[in-house]
Amino acid sequence: MDKKEENGKIAGVPRTDLALEVRETFEEDNVEIQGVVLKEDYDKKKDIRVTTVTIKDQKGADAMGKPIGTYITIEAPKLGEEDESFHEPITKEIAKYIKQLAGETSKREILIAGLGNRDVTPDALGPQVVDNLFVTRHLAKEFGNSFLEENNMGNVSAISPGVMAQTGMETSEVLRGIIRETKPKLVIVIDALAARSIHRLNKTVQITDTGISPGSGVGNNRKALNKDSLGVDVIALGVPTVVDAFTIVSDTMEQFMSKQGFGEKEIHQFMNELNEETMGNMFVTPKNIDETIKRISYTVSEALNKCFA
Amino acid sequence: MDKKEENGKIAGVPRTDLALEVRETFEEDNVEIQGVVLKEDYDKKKDIRVTTVTIKDQKGADAMGKPIGTYITIEAPKLGEEDESFHEPITKEIAKYIKQLAGETSKREILIAGLGNRDVTPDALGPQVVDNLFVTRHLAKEFGNSFLEENNMGNVSAISPGVMAQTGMETSEVLRGIIRETKPKLVIVIDALAARSIHRLNKTVQITDTGISPGSGVGNNRKALNKDSLGVDVIALGVPTVVDAFTIVSDTMEQFMSKQGFGEKEIHQFMNELNEETMGNMFVTPKNIDETIKRISYTVSEALNKCFA
Amino acid sequence: MDKKEENGKIAGVPRTDLALEVRETFEEDNVEIQGVVLKEDYDKKKDIRVTTVTIKDQKGADAMGKPIGTYITIEAPKLGEEDESFHEPITKEIAKYIKQLAGETSKREILIAGLGNRDVTPDALGPQVVDNLFVTRHLAKEFGNSFLEENNMGNVSAISPGVMAQTGMETSEVLRGIIRETKPKLVIVIDALAARSIHRLNKTVQITDTGISPGSGVGNNRKALNKDSLGVDVIALGVPTVVDAFTIVSDTMEQFMSKQGFGEKEIHQFMNELNEETMGNMFVTPKNIDETIKRISYTVSEALNKCFA
Amino acid sequence: MDKKEENGKIAGVPRTDLALEVRETFEEDNVEIQGVVLKEDYDKKKDIRVTTVTIKDQKGADAMGKPIGTYITIEAPKLGEEDESFHEPITKEIAKYIKQLAGETSKREILIAGLGNRDVTPDALGPQVVDNLFVTRHLAKEFGNSFLEENNMGNVSAISPGVMAQTGMETSEVLRGIIRETKPKLVIVIDALAARSIHRLNKTVQITDTGISPGSGVGNNRKALNKDSLGVDVIALGVPTVVDAFTIVSDTMEQFMSKQGFGEKEIHQFMNELNEETMGNMFVTPKNIDETIKRISYTVSEALNKCFA
Repeated sequence: MDKKEENGKIAGVPRTDLALEVRETFEEDNVEIQGVVLKEDYDKKKDIRVTTVTIKDQKGADAMGKPIGTYITIEAPKLGEEDESFHEPITKEIAKYIKQLAGETSKREILIAGLGNRDVTPDALGPQVVDNLFVTRHLAKEFGNSFLEENNMGNVSAISPGVMAQTGMETSEVLRGIIRETKPKLVIVIDALAARSIHRLNKTVQITDTGISPGSGVGNNRKALNKDSLGVDVIALGVPTVVDAFTIVSDTMEQFMSKQGFGEKEIHQFMNELNEETMGNMFVTPKNIDETIKRISYTVSEALNKCFA
Repeated sequence: MDKKEENGKIAGVPRTDLALEVRETFEEDNVEIQGVVLKEDYDKKKDIRVTTVTIKDQKGADAMGKPIGTYITIEAPKLGEEDESFHEPITKEIAKYIKQLAGETSKREILIAGLGNRDVTPDALGPQVVDNLFVTRHLAKEFGNSFLEENNMGNVSAISPGVMAQTGMETSEVLRGIIRETKPKLVIVIDALAARSIHRLNKTVQITDTGISPGSGVGNNRKALNKDSLGVDVIALGVPTVVDAFTIVSDTMEQFMSKQGFGEKEIHQFMNELNEETMGNMFVTPKNIDETIKRISYTVSEALNKCFA
Repeated sequence: MDKKEENGKIAGVPRTDLALEVRETFEEDNVEIQGVVLKEDYDKKKDIRVTTVTIKDQKGADAMGKPIGTYITIEAPKLGEEDESFHEPITKEIAKYIKQLAGETSKREILIAGLGNRDVTPDALGPQVVDNLFVTRHLAKEFGNSFLEENNMGNVSAISPGVMAQTGMETSEVLRGIIRETKPKLVIVIDALAARSIHRLNKTVQITDTGISPGSGVGNNRKALNKDSLGVDVIALGVPTVVDAFTIVSDTMEQFMSKQGFGEKEIHQFMNELNEETMGNMFVTPKNIDETIKRISYTVSEALNKCFA
Repeated sequence: MDKKEENGKIAGVPRTDLALEVRETFEEDNVEIQGVVLKEDYDKKKDIRVTTVTIKDQKGADAMGKPIGTYITIEAPKLGEEDESFHEPITKEIAKYIKQLAGETSKREILIAGLGNRDVTPDALGPQVVDNLFVTRHLAKEFGNSFLEENNMGNVSAISPGVMAQTGMETSEVLRGIIRETKPKLVIVIDALAARSIHRLNKTVQITDTGISPGSGVGNNRKALNKDSLGVDVIALGVPTVVDAFTIVSDTMEQFMSKQGFGEKEIHQFMNELNEETMGNMFVTPKNIDETIKRISYTVSEALNKCFA
């Protein structure tokens, strides 16, 4: 069974970095999945929904096409909008779940990596988060380790490694090198993600203790960034900011063909004809993505500063 | 007849800023258009194709849905790619046609306006062109008018007025004010355009003496920028860098439905159902748009420097 | 009497955009100045000092070398430092004095202009303030004038006009054009200033109802921006971010020579020998100016948003 | 003897990253230095002067206060100015000497590191050079090693590691980690330097095979970057873009005091009184530094592309 079909849908259709969207493809089919536990909380007043998908064993991992671990999704429809309180409730929510996954390491050496391309607006989330971080590791070197403790600060370093087209290196190579040299206890990677539905864009934060698997994202040539590849615990925080152009076209087509009574085979065949090549390097994003990325990256960096600085 | 149908196609489908693409919708139907003259040149060695669409009278204007005037399209498949000679042949071609449209004013007072949003990568073409321009108007003020003549320089001023979400003002208001105050003889507006086909993205330069009409572009709230609205001759130079998300989906659907034998009425009805609202503020662009915009803006600014500086 | 001596000091020495520093040159000499009233408030808890210099008549204006009007200086030593509360007390103080000078116009049409060069860090204050503003004027155009009233919003437009080397135009030309076209009731110009003492850098905000006079600043070729030149009330808000290289050298020299007992004539002569040309286009600024400008521009934009949005 | 006096001058005075300027302090004193060889070439037509300072042994190193090695200085007064040929002669000269120092490795694996702070204009030289590089290492990974050979390309990777205030890490830590992981044969570090004289700013390129020693630069907290610390050959290319504020003041003072007949002891004493603390974190740079950095970084990146891409 090829990788695409592991997601339980016909080839080529679903392209998402969100565990929640993978889970939904099953819901539509009303399927119960062994090894996968779902928990949902909704705070009506704040309009924030938190869904925790726990993949407990290999069976669940096979069904979901994602590694064993915890995937927390915070849905906040106003995440990307102008807000006088600077999204304080969302900031608190993000901080709470990062701390939960970080556990006891939260006041120890942490490296935060802002993945993505600073020069492509919807991919600039990671670098812009890093720009707003309060880094402290050098203060420990300058004033002694006790300085951070006395001031109740974590030990935070940060890097925006750039993308392969800029550096000629895999992000995993750059991070592995830095980690071996500076020996953080925990790495947090921040990245812009690809969603399947445009309705999720800039409204969702996914936090997971599984790191990042080879996936689409905005630039789809990433290698895995997880405990296996980096040798240290990895938390990944991602926000969907784009939909693949191919996904948006094929989803619309599939819905239309199903409604018109085309059989699965016909649909499958048409999808194979749809030239993925042409659209393979194209993404869809909103026109006001600059303001959105600025606000979300500010909210995420404030959450990280609250946790560790 | 509503505006959308003026383009001669069913509602909602064609969304393009390129006269060439409007013309093509007729070619497909094998229609001859009164009042519209087409001329094509292809330089095989340089792989550059230049198409001139001249709309000669109101009949042609009505049929094309575009104002009377000259639309020159330079198609150069390698425009956005890495190039050791820095696209010198394309630079020359662009300069040649700008001069042709500018006529005798080419060494007189010229204001170049880089439209678009500096912070949204595919919309940053205009501001990035302005960043690379050689402006000279202040030298005339400082060293006397003869200084520019003696050095064989044009009199060039430039502005990146930003977009309405940043300024609260229409681009036309900002430019009209500046023009009344500084009295240039010619205004050249540079803008990122929307194409209908992803195959045209970053491969085409359109130069026209009609200015810019209310259109899509990346941010679709522009008012007209032309001799009527600005009170001075206007040349518009545009490069398609995005396709509307709605266009890419509806085009694929329409092709599929035609092929499947659906009637025009059914297609029309489905297109109306396709929720344009949802996709109305989304655009499609390539993942490496940062490098592409950097190269193209450099090429365009070199062409302008060659013409006027 | 040449312009430099109007400041009451020997030629070439004082180069400051701060009324407070001009006033101090007299204090040193223990001179009382006719037509100039000084008022000082110090809030010990917040460590914020507010000095109001009121130049009441032409005599005072002649003595100070600055136009008749009110100059409010807010000194806050921590203005440029990292702060968990995002400088809320300073934000409130700035907002209070802007409102005081703006008077009844504070909820009417206001244009905010961010002067300076976005690409030279200490001169980027104005453009960075504009980047963080909440502009609303287009909402009134889109949803009707009552929309802003109902939402208790001011009518704010904003522009970063760039500097003459980028545009070929005087800032006054660009602003006058835009003002004639969009007819704001009040213009607020934001600018990076030159101080005389490095101890004041990034610690002081000057707010005045006199606009900006031809002065040094970071780029010293500005024409006046005031009610006379723009035809509308002008408030100027400035923060000193640089000291002229010539000033820092000549001040040190003068102090040394005075202490050594050199006479005024000898000092005067040496200063004339000091090659101002060489250092005339050089400025002095701190190495961490990037973080400082980011924080101060955020504080100033929040103050403006509080006043008008 | 403290470090400052190793330069052969009184404490606190000379602060320069340029071997040429260190050498000049001896020239003034007409001293011949054992273990140091000087060679000079001047091309009158191109107005380019190349000086090679070779420090041959420890005696020379002690006298110069710089490590054993070759220091090539290319002086080109027009380096930072507008130029229609894009500084092609200087580009060629830089490429020639990089190749000379790189030797046979020039077509093998090379990592280029752009040091400095992207957000402080005169310190952005390194990052801006990297932005314009043609990186190729990932092409070898994607298309096989022979791909680069067949296309006569070098194997180039690149990184802009940021500065300690942004990352919490020493540049040497970040680079050492990446080097261990990606195993380049040669590292080239690009950096903005501090000169002693404002007359050298943006007119000089220094290329050396000794790497970078702990020094001033714009941000003065760098650790050594050389074969010892990085475990691989290191070439450093630097351009002076700033003068320390303390240097400019103390140099002027010293000249004045010497001329006035003050003794060395008195001068020494006054220099110690001059509060270095106050000015210690301040630099001097020209007002048009943005254009200058843009042009020079373009010239340097073209030279590197010519060598290796």
